[in-house]
Amino acid sequence: MQPLTGHIPGFLQRIAEVNNGLEDLTACQLVPFQADGQRLGYLKQDFMQKLLQFPTVFVLQQQQAAGSSGRQVLTLAAEHATMQQRSNAVAGVLESLRKEQGMFSGWRDELYPVTAALDAPPALLVERAAAPLFGIRAYGVHVNGYVVGADGSKKLWVARRSKSKQTWPGKLDHIVAGGQPYGLSCAANVAKECWEEAGIPAELAAAAAPVGFVSYVSMSEEGLKPDVLLCYDLQLPQDFVPQPQDGEVEEFMLWDLEKVAATISSSTEYKPNCCLVIIDFLVRHGLVAPEEAGYLRMVRGLHAGDPL
Amino acid sequence: MQPLTGHIPGFLQRIAEVNNGLEDLTACQLVPFQADGQRLGYLKQDFMQKLLQFPTVFVLQQQQAAGSSGRQVLTLAAEHATMQQRSNAVAGVLESLRKEQGMFSGWRDELYPVTAALDAPPALLVERAAAPLFGIRAYGVHVNGYVVGADGSKKLWVARRSKSKQTWPGKLDHIVAGGQPYGLSCAANVAKECWEEAGIPAELAAAAAPVGFVSYVSMSEEGLKPDVLLCYDLQLPQDFVPQPQDGEVEEFMLWDLEKVAATISSSTEYKPNCCLVIIDFLVRHGLVAPEEAGYLRMVRGLHAGDPL
Repeated sequence: MQPLTGHIPGFLQRIAEVNNGLEDLTACQLVPFQADGQRLGYLKQDFMQKLLQFPTVFVLQQQQAAGSSGRQVLTLAAEHATMQQRSNAVAGVLESLRKEQGMFSGWRDELYPVTAALDAPPALLVERAAAPLFGIRAYGVHVNGYVVGADGSKKLWVARRSKSKQTWPGKLDHIVAGGQPYGLSCAANVAKECWEEAGIPAELAAAAAPVGFVSYVSMSEEGLKPDVLLCYDLQLPQDFVPQPQDGEVEEFMLWDLEKVAATISSSTEYKPNCCLVIIDFLVRHGLVAPEEAGYLRMVRGLHAGDPL
Repeated sequence: MQPLTGHIPGFLQRIAEVNNGLEDLTACQLVPFQADGQRLGYLKQDFMQKLLQFPTVFVLQQQQAAGSSGRQVLTLAAEHATMQQRSNAVAGVLESLRKEQGMFSGWRDELYPVTAALDAPPALLVERAAAPLFGIRAYGVHVNGYVVGADGSKKLWVARRSKSKQTWPGKLDHIVAGGQPYGLSCAANVAKECWEEAGIPAELAAAAAPVGFVSYVSMSEEGLKPDVLLCYDLQLPQDFVPQPQDGEVEEFMLWDLEKVAATISSSTEYKPNCCLVIIDFLVRHGLVAPEEAGYLRMVRGLHAGDPL
């Protein structure tokens, strides 16, 4: 396939939009959150004030690191020393805030591991709906489900999110994508989500290949999302048709890559973080020409969250 | 293909070795070089002293940027205002240093564009052999030439560099790789190098797909190399055998990816910067499992030169 030209300015626009939290972060508008001596997230001032209503759990500390010029960090009271103790203490606070102050409308009863790195043991587990308020890094798996035609041209399966979804209703999405929960390998999570979201059987899902990751720093009303999405490529048979299993998807469509690229570069129809994964897909499949202005800046932008 | 396991510690080792310039850079041991108000490179103190022997061309200046605390930068005298004037003035200095002081033993009569970005117009052109002394970013094209067997398994063409090569004699290399010279598109350069280095005809070379880039910060005896390598994947027919055309390659070998991965992770047989491109290839082809410790750090390490 020949490169799809003319899309880099629009791609750079989408990358900038999803990284709308970079400025607040570099301007030190957020309070670092740490436990067990490791930085785990960043909080807005108003959420920090709510947490400080529970002084047996949360405490403010002067940052000790060299050159940090006495910046304050939020941490956990020393008595919460193990992962289980930290998780229980924080869960108690979140329950209180939820019941007494009506916070966390998107409560999911799904625990997210809070870690300093994907391969580090979790310092604690928190309810997924609260993760953005702590500004902790969440990990997800995003699957590019594509089909190769007889002439070698590629098409990408595109999902339209249900209009009743809590987040990003009606936006375009990957055939399969999901948060990475605690206690499941990425590969097992991909297989599980493949079945639940698109009815892709295990035999087909097994071909999903891990091909790297993208990272970004989004700011929402709730807080910072400095997330990492592990990217998978899954070539599907030409005659396979995905089936929504759980009501989260309104329809699946098979689009040629020119249409996908044009939709991303010229509109905000896609769920923002999916744009990064698909731009990465187009780059890895040789469909963006390095001769076009902005190529290096664009590829770099797919990892804007890395320095965190 | 199943992921090749157990190689990440070795891969991280190779990535660290090729980035042996990061420490000097972050410790401010190098003097920034700029022209036309843009930072173009970094010099060692001793090379800077040699250049300051030519005060009509090179001058020291206090850096103006906010927060730079009066750091000195090397720049060109104001009268050298156009690309041609700058190139001529610097060429004159380099000629003098070469003839009178025997510098630049690897002189190539090949001009490198000195730019603030791949898509920026060059601020000046300098002889390729001098680029490392100025610490300017050089761009290269590296081609992963691979073959897919009937069972779907992949093999990679591996070149052994001639023992008479000026740089990295006898080391393992890509089937095709070369510096990106001025005035040639990346695609045209790939086609040219494909023919010159491996006898790959234009019809086959046209299938080389641009798939991203890697970046690093190497320090050599000469100076800093904060380089960017544009990566290409070229699937070759099973019956194609590369032929050395220019005496720079001793032999070509077709290795399975397990052997390639093991060679990189357990030895320094490969030319160092090629390791990054091949690790990137293995990642993009789904052959490294994100469940293995160090995966994110490793993928990030393939772009260690990006923040420059």
